[in-house]
Amino acid sequence: MSEPGAAGPGPGPAAIQVSRIMRPDDANIAGNVHGGTILKMIEEAGAIISTRHCNSQAGEPCVAALARVERTDFLSPMCIGEVANVSAEITYTSRHSVEVQVNVMSENILTGAKKVTNKATLWYVPLSLKNVNKVVEVPPIQYARKEQEDEGKKRYEEQKLDRLETKQRNGDVIFPVINPDRQTKEPHTVGYSQSSLIHLVGPSDCTLLGFVHGGVTMKLMDEVAGIVAARHCKTNIVTASVDAINFHEKIKKGSVITISGRMTFTSNKSMEIEVFVDADPFVDESRGRYRAVSAFFTYVSLSKEGKPLPVPQLLTETEDEKRRFEEGKGRYLQTKAKRQAQMQQAAQH
Amino acid sequence: MSEPGAAGPGPGPAAIQVSRIMRPDDANIAGNVHGGTILKMIEEAGAIISTRHCNSQAGEPCVAALARVERTDFLSPMCIGEVANVSAEITYTSRHSVEVQVNVMSENILTGAKKVTNKATLWYVPLSLKNVNKVVEVPPIQYARKEQEDEGKKRYEEQKLDRLETKQRNGDVIFPVINPDRQTKEPHTVGYSQSSLIHLVGPSDCTLLGFVHGGVTMKLMDEVAGIVAARHCKTNIVTASVDAINFHEKIKKGSVITISGRMTFTSNKSMEIEVFVDADPFVDESRGRYRAVSAFFTYVSLSKEGKPLPVPQLLTETEDEKRRFEEGKGRYLQTKAKRQAQMQQAAQH
Amino acid sequence: MSEPGAAGPGPGPAAIQVSRIMRPDDANIAGNVHGGTILKMIEEAGAIISTRHCNSQAGEPCVAALARVERTDFLSPMCIGEVANVSAEITYTSRHSVEVQVNVMSENILTGAKKVTNKATLWYVPLSLKNVNKVVEVPPIQYARKEQEDEGKKRYEEQKLDRLETKQRNGDVIFPVINPDRQTKEPHTVGYSQSSLIHLVGPSDCTLLGFVHGGVTMKLMDEVAGIVAARHCKTNIVTASVDAINFHEKIKKGSVITISGRMTFTSNKSMEIEVFVDADPFVDESRGRYRAVSAFFTYVSLSKEGKPLPVPQLLTETEDEKRRFEEGKGRYLQTKAKRQAQMQQAAQH
Repeated sequence: MSEPGAAGPGPGPAAIQVSRIMRPDDANIAGNVHGGTILKMIEEAGAIISTRHCNSQAGEPCVAALARVERTDFLSPMCIGEVANVSAEITYTSRHSVEVQVNVMSENILTGAKKVTNKATLWYVPLSLKNVNKVVEVPPIQYARKEQEDEGKKRYEEQKLDRLETKQRNGDVIFPVINPDRQTKEPHTVGYSQSSLIHLVGPSDCTLLGFVHGGVTMKLMDEVAGIVAARHCKTNIVTASVDAINFHEKIKKGSVITISGRMTFTSNKSMEIEVFVDADPFVDESRGRYRAVSAFFTYVSLSKEGKPLPVPQLLTETEDEKRRFEEGKGRYLQTKAKRQAQMQQAAQH
Repeated sequence: MSEPGAAGPGPGPAAIQVSRIMRPDDANIAGNVHGGTILKMIEEAGAIISTRHCNSQAGEPCVAALARVERTDFLSPMCIGEVANVSAEITYTSRHSVEVQVNVMSENILTGAKKVTNKATLWYVPLSLKNVNKVVEVPPIQYARKEQEDEGKKRYEEQKLDRLETKQRNGDVIFPVINPDRQTKEPHTVGYSQSSLIHLVGPSDCTLLGFVHGGVTMKLMDEVAGIVAARHCKTNIVTASVDAINFHEKIKKGSVITISGRMTFTSNKSMEIEVFVDADPFVDESRGRYRAVSAFFTYVSLSKEGKPLPVPQLLTETEDEKRRFEEGKGRYLQTKAKRQAQMQQAAQH
Repeated sequence: MSEPGAAGPGPGPAAIQVSRIMRPDDANIAGNVHGGTILKMIEEAGAIISTRHCNSQAGEPCVAALARVERTDFLSPMCIGEVANVSAEITYTSRHSVEVQVNVMSENILTGAKKVTNKATLWYVPLSLKNVNKVVEVPPIQYARKEQEDEGKKRYEEQKLDRLETKQRNGDVIFPVINPDRQTKEPHTVGYSQSSLIHLVGPSDCTLLGFVHGGVTMKLMDEVAGIVAARHCKTNIVTASVDAINFHEKIKKGSVITISGRMTFTSNKSMEIEVFVDADPFVDESRGRYRAVSAFFTYVSLSKEGKPLPVPQLLTETEDEKRRFEEGKGRYLQTKAKRQAQMQQAAQH
């Protein structure tokens, strides 16, 4: 499925296509569309197609909830006035989860130029409409070739493992003191660019089950990460990639969510920002504040001509900051190595 | 083109599909999606596909501006949580205009039920990006059959005539004193339900040319018409149809627009509301306030079970109100006769 | 002008009226419309009428910028589905400023019930479109009676004095460390409910001059104050009043604004929250972070039946917190005394 508007013969049920003109409110002042705007569109397409599929056989009515988004790279920027073409199709189903592949293309409708903006893989889990804690069974899809099913199963096992790992890691993390007095901080330190926002979850943020859409959360996370990046380098910044995000905990309508971001690592031309989402269902006495999601966003700084600019190095002060910087470096080198391997492989074919 | 997601081999270039989950803010408190929300989605799809087509050959870059929307009937209501599937394709091109057909289907993704919500025909005119007063040439589309071209040409001639007529009528209309003291008015009079709102045109309301999207205007018109209807009958009301709307005058970013509505006619089960849009480009010295658009909206009142309710008769007081009531009655009877003729024709086939 | 809907022969130019149905996103989960939603509507009406007036004579094109909002009391709550009727008129003009009176009524269009929600007085200053630092001259309005002009002049002098005072006070305030680790804080302390959010100023937030609309700022302030109040008493809370707010410093498009709130005082049935707005025009090297606005919001806690509930007493820990509590008590007693005097006066007539 490469052409917008073309619903190719995919392995699963009918694909879905969403197109929308990018408005000034979707972009930063340099005219680059926020990564968060795109992530929100991707997730909406995924939620529609997976909820539709999970209800396609006479079973218990259910709503698909986002469980995980695989790492995605933003390959080229999208601008105000361009059309975002988002197409989604189901590529694998396990007993209790659905894998959705989404392609995003930017289209300049004045010149006809089209570019792949990014591709993403999302995992959804269908929750019963009557009992939100019950996961219902997913109708299996038909595969054109046996290999498609085998490859899907492999991807399924891999993400399952990764989700378990982050669940444990998330539990460990103790929330840092955030938002110190920026005035007294040195530029380029972690504390200088640290930022957080709070958001009261409204009805339009939620699914039919009354829980926040994963796409809404990702958009807010990108907003905070973008502010951290801009505070650090004071230039036009854009989202370059988002690491895999796991949604372990649902967030209920009426909760207050705090989204906090801190810079963890800088390379010559990129910044890594760790973002936490903490939910406080404060009218619900039975439960205190809890960590709902966390993720790493990578940003680059662009010149007026759209060329990557050098990024000021992050100044680490505490032992924890130094440790996180090294961990970020590890992720950076790993990704770089993986990309080079893929390019060599592609060159050989 | 009946299947969402399927871009069939239509007469024109690749069709476009837009899908979106309906949110609480898209609907009234009874959960029925506003007609204006749907009109806005329709117009966005039309603007994308016609701008794309008009730039498909190496010519002067241009942006398609909405010139006219044909009468559309809302056949069945759409609800919060349902998916609106809007698909658009180009069905005719003249030298300077593009006809777009749009189908809207509501889809309950829990039950799989789909219903045609409405169909609409929109006419766009491509304006040069460099000189907004210049209409550029439209590349011709290919027709599968000769009859398609002939029928399109007939529709083109008809709408052209109608546009000329309303242009003259629009000029005549003298804007009435609106929004008198409602407190002292009798219920069910014209003055009692008259309403207006003002809106400051922001950047996200506008196209690349810096003029308001037709869909934004229609959404505001529906909002005012809905308030008039609700004030009159104090029940849950929904948009039943919109008469042909002609967009004679562009509205520039930064203008203030006043949208006013007054009831003109009631039948047993429907209300007709006339809506005016006046633009005031108030920081632009060269031009005063002007009438940009006007249209008739028809609303029905629904019981909790979704059945049409009787509507209180409109009390006319002045000569003008009586005249407008009779004119509304004429339009009502004409539409009714046309519909009956279509049904008989359909029954004979 | 006492009656909304009446565009009577006021002292100034034609009044304007804005009506809008309140949507789910305008309200909290109990269905009460946020005070901030209403403040934003009020300011939009004020900006339109004063910009229109200031451009009504052939002078330099200009945009009216909000300079001050007088204290306003929210007399009765507004709910989702009701229509907010906002009417504004110009009541006084000095050489360089415009006074706008705004009345807000809630209207239940199903029952016809109307209630005064609040009244507000706003002061605008016209800034040249070509040179944003130049204040242009305001065309004088006509007064029906000489006393109207005299009373207006008195109000003008009073607010001028107050603006000067807060300007000095604002400069003094040193911004406290905010948002410490809430987990370790005792409930009902200042630190426990302290909250802040950041917002990246987008194009829709701004006027034609590229500066944030005062109404956008007030809406964000109310959002933070509401979260502080809800965290303190964990019940349904609503805005009861807002003290006079002075807008000394403009905020430019592309800035990041931090809005922070802390509770300063509680009476038996009300909470006072101080809110700060700090702007960081971070791509503009020439200027650091600065205090743009600050204000006091008063909230009450409501039972499910809409009756005021007792509020847990604020626990003050530091000397500063104790001092601010006493100052808040002073404001509370002063307001109470003023209101009692007004009621006695009204009873005597």
